[in-house]
Amino acid sequence: MIRKLSIPTGGQGLHEITAAVQDVVHGEDVTEGLCTIFVQHTSASLIVQENADPAVRRDLECWLGRMVPEGDDLYTHKSEGDDDMPAHIKSMLTASSISIPIVNGKLGLGTWQGVYLWEHRKGRYSRQILVHVQY
Amino acid sequence: MIRKLSIPTGGQGLHEITAAVQDVVHGEDVTEGLCTIFVQHTSASLIVQENADPAVRRDLECWLGRMVPEGDDLYTHKSEGDDDMPAHIKSMLTASSISIPIVNGKLGLGTWQGVYLWEHRKGRYSRQILVHVQY
Amino acid sequence: MIRKLSIPTGGQGLHEITAAVQDVVHGEDVTEGLCTIFVQHTSASLIVQENADPAVRRDLECWLGRMVPEGDDLYTHKSEGDDDMPAHIKSMLTASSISIPIVNGKLGLGTWQGVYLWEHRKGRYSRQILVHVQY
Repeated sequence: MIRKLSIPTGGQGLHEITAAVQDVVHGEDVTEGLCTIFVQHTSASLIVQENADPAVRRDLECWLGRMVPEGDDLYTHKSEGDDDMPAHIKSMLTASSISIPIVNGKLGLGTWQGVYLWEHRKGRYSRQILVHVQY
Repeated sequence: MIRKLSIPTGGQGLHEITAAVQDVVHGEDVTEGLCTIFVQHTSASLIVQENADPAVRRDLECWLGRMVPEGDDLYTHKSEGDDDMPAHIKSMLTASSISIPIVNGKLGLGTWQGVYLWEHRKGRYSRQILVHVQY
Repeated sequence: MIRKLSIPTGGQGLHEITAAVQDVVHGEDVTEGLCTIFVQHTSASLIVQENADPAVRRDLECWLGRMVPEGDDLYTHKSEGDDDMPAHIKSMLTASSISIPIVNGKLGLGTWQGVYLWEHRKGRYSRQILVHVQY
């Protein structure tokens, strides 16, 4: 019913996890239900976005990076590195949890949708995601 | 347990879907449970917002349009039109899925809350929303 | 299965509700499941964020306040006070609902995660949150 995924990210960007989440759903042998993913971090987040043109993901990354720059004088939380407070803000603007209905044993995604873990920090991290499957 | 709604939008803006989602809940004859909506697109999104003064929705639309303008030099994904990359960013900043508890057979919305599909593109689209009702 | 929490806020800021939500989960005596929280307002919202350094929460508050200032000429919805339209926009950018898997009878939060109600208005309010626990 609940599985934990450990996703090594190794740098900022959108890491596709569609197949990994779909594998959990397959393993549960459920035809119709609900799949909820939850990220156990506050400097990485979740998003459903276009899985076709990689330029979309690069533009999302660039736009958010410009919106939430490093080195902003506003930040007082600086002890964990220049990319830490921007990472919290980027997480705030995207999602901690997403719920996707399961249809015919598969995630009910649209044709052009993929599920992504968005790593907002520069270092090497292993991110934990809980996947809950409801029958 | 899962129903698909097809919502014709026909232009940018917030399209109220409260009644359509409520109809699905009624049809399932559930007293207490959880209703999850999921949009199968990445250039339209979901939001719960004020259903009283229409000026609130217009202001939300204007604010987001100013924040994510067309023709930004940052965009490299341009092949699908000037309004396409802004639509992906606007979707990123709002929600792909929302879960609302069902209380006494109805969506447990606050007095001033409505559920909206937010169309971020200008053309005529039919948007698909999955509604999952859990008992 | 569903409980309502009434949270007095009394001013803008992030109010931690982790313990209150955890109490609902404990009361349901569920080992593994899903906890969904939903806020019945459109000028307050929900967020999972770092529960360690309070400076993170202050920086989030300051950043969002700068991004969505009071007195913006764009706003036409002004009848409910200078802080009202910014509150709707801030709610739009954060979450109305969050779903957290329940593991071993507890919210499956990461080590540094807390659950917060974000009050975006200045006055004294009592905010209603629905907590749905699924077995």
